[in-house]
Amino acid sequence: MSQFNNIGLIGRLHSPAVVETLHRVLACLSLAHEQNTKQSRRQIWVDERISGSLDGVDLGVGQYTTGDIHLLGQQCDLVIVVGGDGSMLSAARVMATYGVPMIGINRGKLGFLTDIAPDQVEASLSQVLAGEYEVSDRFMLSAHVLRNGTEIGRGSGLNDVVLHPGQSARMLAFDITIDGAPAYFARADGLIIATPTGSTAYALSAGGPIMHPSLDAIALVPMNPHNLSSRPLVVSADAELELRIGDDNSTQPIISCDGQEHIVCEPGDQVLIRRHEARLRVLHPLGHHFYQRCRSKLGWQGRASEDG
Amino acid sequence: MSQFNNIGLIGRLHSPAVVETLHRVLACLSLAHEQNTKQSRRQIWVDERISGSLDGVDLGVGQYTTGDIHLLGQQCDLVIVVGGDGSMLSAARVMATYGVPMIGINRGKLGFLTDIAPDQVEASLSQVLAGEYEVSDRFMLSAHVLRNGTEIGRGSGLNDVVLHPGQSARMLAFDITIDGAPAYFARADGLIIATPTGSTAYALSAGGPIMHPSLDAIALVPMNPHNLSSRPLVVSADAELELRIGDDNSTQPIISCDGQEHIVCEPGDQVLIRRHEARLRVLHPLGHHFYQRCRSKLGWQGRASEDG
Amino acid sequence: MSQFNNIGLIGRLHSPAVVETLHRVLACLSLAHEQNTKQSRRQIWVDERISGSLDGVDLGVGQYTTGDIHLLGQQCDLVIVVGGDGSMLSAARVMATYGVPMIGINRGKLGFLTDIAPDQVEASLSQVLAGEYEVSDRFMLSAHVLRNGTEIGRGSGLNDVVLHPGQSARMLAFDITIDGAPAYFARADGLIIATPTGSTAYALSAGGPIMHPSLDAIALVPMNPHNLSSRPLVVSADAELELRIGDDNSTQPIISCDGQEHIVCEPGDQVLIRRHEARLRVLHPLGHHFYQRCRSKLGWQGRASEDG
Amino acid sequence: MSQFNNIGLIGRLHSPAVVETLHRVLACLSLAHEQNTKQSRRQIWVDERISGSLDGVDLGVGQYTTGDIHLLGQQCDLVIVVGGDGSMLSAARVMATYGVPMIGINRGKLGFLTDIAPDQVEASLSQVLAGEYEVSDRFMLSAHVLRNGTEIGRGSGLNDVVLHPGQSARMLAFDITIDGAPAYFARADGLIIATPTGSTAYALSAGGPIMHPSLDAIALVPMNPHNLSSRPLVVSADAELELRIGDDNSTQPIISCDGQEHIVCEPGDQVLIRRHEARLRVLHPLGHHFYQRCRSKLGWQGRASEDG
Repeated sequence: MSQFNNIGLIGRLHSPAVVETLHRVLACLSLAHEQNTKQSRRQIWVDERISGSLDGVDLGVGQYTTGDIHLLGQQCDLVIVVGGDGSMLSAARVMATYGVPMIGINRGKLGFLTDIAPDQVEASLSQVLAGEYEVSDRFMLSAHVLRNGTEIGRGSGLNDVVLHPGQSARMLAFDITIDGAPAYFARADGLIIATPTGSTAYALSAGGPIMHPSLDAIALVPMNPHNLSSRPLVVSADAELELRIGDDNSTQPIISCDGQEHIVCEPGDQVLIRRHEARLRVLHPLGHHFYQRCRSKLGWQGRASEDG
Repeated sequence: MSQFNNIGLIGRLHSPAVVETLHRVLACLSLAHEQNTKQSRRQIWVDERISGSLDGVDLGVGQYTTGDIHLLGQQCDLVIVVGGDGSMLSAARVMATYGVPMIGINRGKLGFLTDIAPDQVEASLSQVLAGEYEVSDRFMLSAHVLRNGTEIGRGSGLNDVVLHPGQSARMLAFDITIDGAPAYFARADGLIIATPTGSTAYALSAGGPIMHPSLDAIALVPMNPHNLSSRPLVVSADAELELRIGDDNSTQPIISCDGQEHIVCEPGDQVLIRRHEARLRVLHPLGHHFYQRCRSKLGWQGRASEDG
Repeated sequence: MSQFNNIGLIGRLHSPAVVETLHRVLACLSLAHEQNTKQSRRQIWVDERISGSLDGVDLGVGQYTTGDIHLLGQQCDLVIVVGGDGSMLSAARVMATYGVPMIGINRGKLGFLTDIAPDQVEASLSQVLAGEYEVSDRFMLSAHVLRNGTEIGRGSGLNDVVLHPGQSARMLAFDITIDGAPAYFARADGLIIATPTGSTAYALSAGGPIMHPSLDAIALVPMNPHNLSSRPLVVSADAELELRIGDDNSTQPIISCDGQEHIVCEPGDQVLIRRHEARLRVLHPLGHHFYQRCRSKLGWQGRASEDG
Repeated sequence: MSQFNNIGLIGRLHSPAVVETLHRVLACLSLAHEQNTKQSRRQIWVDERISGSLDGVDLGVGQYTTGDIHLLGQQCDLVIVVGGDGSMLSAARVMATYGVPMIGINRGKLGFLTDIAPDQVEASLSQVLAGEYEVSDRFMLSAHVLRNGTEIGRGSGLNDVVLHPGQSARMLAFDITIDGAPAYFARADGLIIATPTGSTAYALSAGGPIMHPSLDAIALVPMNPHNLSSRPLVVSADAELELRIGDDNSTQPIISCDGQEHIVCEPGDQVLIRRHEARLRVLHPLGHHFYQRCRSKLGWQGRASEDG
């Protein structure tokens, strides 16, 4: 009997391809359901935002229950996301706080997190349900914005916390203090603070290094820095970062988490960024290889001997 | 009474400025010596390669003993290096194996390791001898070159292990396996594998990130990679790296450790690179700040508010 | 007698330092005026936006006339700007259309265009008025935004034309056609199209090359491109560039000229960018060296022999 | 009747794939020969280094003549190269001096110059022989090495002139003077001076910009510069560059042209680099697109609309 008795289902909205894959997932879970013994109490929970797209799917005996994402977080012991890394990030920030592991089925572009191809749904899910999978724990970042010492906003990010100029394209001035020591003073278009998970996303476009997902480290990557000798900086994941937005900025810069949550800042605001207390657990099919994904997703070449 | 009873002295050769500073160091140690009680048994050991430059220095009671660098490693509980990071690197690979902590006095150019200015010799050394200092432990890398399974050379590096083409400027082809997984297959001018200590040295020129010295991580930085989507990669310091030199290279590439030890390779050779069992302990004056050093050495700007 | 009989004066607003320098400039021009023969008809024209700051300056015989920047363009045969490159850029876009040469006195930060230091006002201006100067002609870019074939906005830039995402931090998708050939298809934070003059400004922060001011070339520099193999591209200054903003962008991207003029775009808009018919003429004191400015402004090191 | 009456044939040595394609080229030329009228005097000249590989090819009436590459340069009005860009570069430096246009058939890896695929030999050659082709003129660089004012070596490059450290991996110190003005003083692994043709080759790996082949410009790209604010520099193709190798280098650096011709230098040597008086003419099939080649060779993505 599988260890996963309550399985949640989340998908990117407004995508026929996602709906098609959701159907396959449901059919697969339903079939597995029937093959269970009578003692089975597997329950399927569907995110209410996508349940309308699934009408008419006959799941046999059990059917499914709908609810909002927090109900899924409370009830499920596994959540399956169908979509791209964007859908995964959005669900991850919730599931991490409930400690629910996730699986990603790729219907999007890049897919470092969503690493199951849609045509491998049945094979991969049956493996995972049978307990055959690899676990990858990912830490997240939390960001707290303080104005005159009072918190005016907070967010969390599995990939990154980004400072960017918001409405204008003017360079920002900001300071960074790391573990209490003044570190980095910059004029730049912004700053990306990335986890290893985020190191293959936006931070990579801005010149940051690739960090192995298991690394306990954070990368600080300035965007288009005015000072030509600025370089990406990698510090411990336990570092306490304090970003202070320069007083003489004429704009309202924005702190974005995973490019999805946004906090509007003002000159003089402080942003405290540190490792989030919650971690996300991602399940991968056996034989998942981070570097293989780098090669295929990032366009690295094949073996040296194949280059000739 | 100081905890350091046997102090070694090493310096860059053929440099009048270094000799001048060595005199100040000796005078300072000698003075400290006299101020010790009768129970003091502080002994000063001077690297035989520089002792000739020190003739005529009157150290009072104790004088000093000369010997080779390994004798210093065996006898001393602190070694002072006067020179640049090059002198420090050279001594560090020996002292790490004897577990002897080091202090660096800067008479060279960059000085991330040699962080005491020559005019602060007395103030800094008396602090350190009085037990007031900060400790920074640095891990090192070991490299073993195998040909048909047999080791043909080995080396160690505090900064980096570098693969480069040696006599020609032809691109090299090589594979990298990390913890048994095929990772990176490249055609490039070479590859820099750097510790956090080395991340502010050669690896930085080649586009690698700056890593905080306390980080347990290794950076792999390809040099002028043919594949434009290659990027620096940061992995755990516990990772086991295996570099295989492509069979179709027409040259004899070289593995260099800290730019000082060299092993000539051949196509097909394997290079195993991992964390060295020995660590180097560096002592710094109190108030030593890594980021401050970055700002002054790398040309980062001052406070955001000063930029206007 | 000088060839410059009508001299305009423009300055950055709200800056006491600029006002102080403007006084020195006026005093210097007034003195030169008195030394002229009776035939002299030198007239001084002051930008009306700064004339209020100059009250109480006694220019002796001639005094000065105030007017808007276009009057200065029509009447003057030399315009002096006191401020930073920002002030210079703003005036340059007007003066280029009137064919009036400019001189820049630096009270700002970088100063590739404003290359006279405030304490050299008298020496430099008297040289220039005496006809001793170097001429540097700079081409500009024009940008025309078309929506369904109709022009909805236009602008010009001495430094650059920049596509950026405006209110959001979402990546943009866009195509570029060069001289009718499809060239570059990108997802990125934006694109900088820079003249040689602009190559040491924003484009440099984004990884573009430095181009000598005399070069007839345009650089296209993608900002944080999603595709890791994207690189800056340099084409002839006569190239006709057409940028098409992808249909599926969910935001209203902005075209900015010199960071000062802005046109709000929509998905599907076309932006035609080409060399502007007008050129800006900048006068420099004799001995002006572009590379010397690079060294001092960009932090390049001194002679190789000084590095040891 | 074709304008090309004397056609030379050059190929990469020791490559069965090249021999196969050479046979197809000969057959194609022979057939075209037969179809000519009696007035035709088309003569085929084969590089003596590859003629041995072509035994047994029956070219009908005319057969072919063998000779060294200089004879081909003197006799031919078109030379066809079968191989990679390396073969093309090697032949180009000779043919440019004889003013003979070239065509490249790709049996190698990259192929910015050799842009005819082997399976399009017949279609492309018949087009070209019929006078339907595009012309691309490429300028080259010449390098002269002077020691104490006396020339000790010279070379020419279609792609680039490269300064590199030769036997060691030590950083080099060097100065650059451009048109008599001190420009660039660097400590680096070396320097690449590239034509537009070479801008998509080695210089691109070192971070240089892509330059359109028609641009009259030269890029100077430092390799792994010690100074983090060094950047690629683009100057006029008419610029006179003088590179001086620092006196305190402990090694014998090397000047390489196209990675094929090498001159061993010593500290203090001067290297004069300027546009070569000869130009290479490359013929391309109609519809040849530089940017299309960038997209396919460099891994740029497709249309913005395809990225979603």
